[in-house]
Amino acid sequence: MKDSVIKHPNCPLCFPEQEDSITQLASLRIIFANEPHYPCFVRVVWNAHIRELSDLSPMERSLLMDVVYIVERCMRSILAPYKINHASFGNKLAHLHWHIIPRWEEDAHWPNPVWGLQQREGLGHSAEKKAALGAAIQSAVLSRVSADS
Amino acid sequence: MKDSVIKHPNCPLCFPEQEDSITQLASLRIIFANEPHYPCFVRVVWNAHIRELSDLSPMERSLLMDVVYIVERCMRSILAPYKINHASFGNKLAHLHWHIIPRWEEDAHWPNPVWGLQQREGLGHSAEKKAALGAAIQSAVLSRVSADS
Repeated sequence: MKDSVIKHPNCPLCFPEQEDSITQLASLRIIFANEPHYPCFVRVVWNAHIRELSDLSPMERSLLMDVVYIVERCMRSILAPYKINHASFGNKLAHLHWHIIPRWEEDAHWPNPVWGLQQREGLGHSAEKKAALGAAIQSAVLSRVSADS
Repeated sequence: MKDSVIKHPNCPLCFPEQEDSITQLASLRIIFANEPHYPCFVRVVWNAHIRELSDLSPMERSLLMDVVYIVERCMRSILAPYKINHASFGNKLAHLHWHIIPRWEEDAHWPNPVWGLQQREGLGHSAEKKAALGAAIQSAVLSRVSADS
């Protein structure tokens, strides 16, 4: 993260302590969220302390959303989930970030959003699939960035 | 909606019966969701029965997301909410659509997503604000579309 990035003193997304990093760019980072039940839940975090999508410039927004689409495509290609879920809330932490979650009909909250009522125990995990997803995202994001430069 | 749009026989978003329409374009429509507690909850629905964001062409995705950003900007300008929430799930209805929800710290589910546990009764509604939001979105979306043509 560049020193010139806008930071908020009390924001854990401005001063991350432990993150399971996939890829770091100057303006954003891609991490595994490691939320219970969802090992391949990915988060795309804008590095600067920005509140809303509409606070980004068109070029910044385009980069952010291209990365979100890349994560979706990699999830479909590597994991073949039943559905992809996208969300950006920021209610508890008003620092722009996206949640991208591969979903299956047998997962813990299906058909609810993962913030809804849990329905069952959920699925087992595959460390190999998670590693393959991380590698695919890293490669595709670096290609997107090098195409720009 | 054009007759050439891909439709799925059992999908209520392909064959809408009653919608509170804000603006209709050939490829998408913008409606008030009229969900309980959230009168200014807006939905952007892709007209064709498309499953995921990555099934759209880059130009289609750019139009869809530009409309999402317009809705956010109009909400901020007309309603000045504490936060904007965005989500695209499609678990129950795998037909691409976005939820855009203005949120306040006193609303029914705050700080949870609106799909989480309700926390309190929530806020009163203003029909005037809702009408002003609809008019602002319609005007901005039509400007975006005419800039393309």
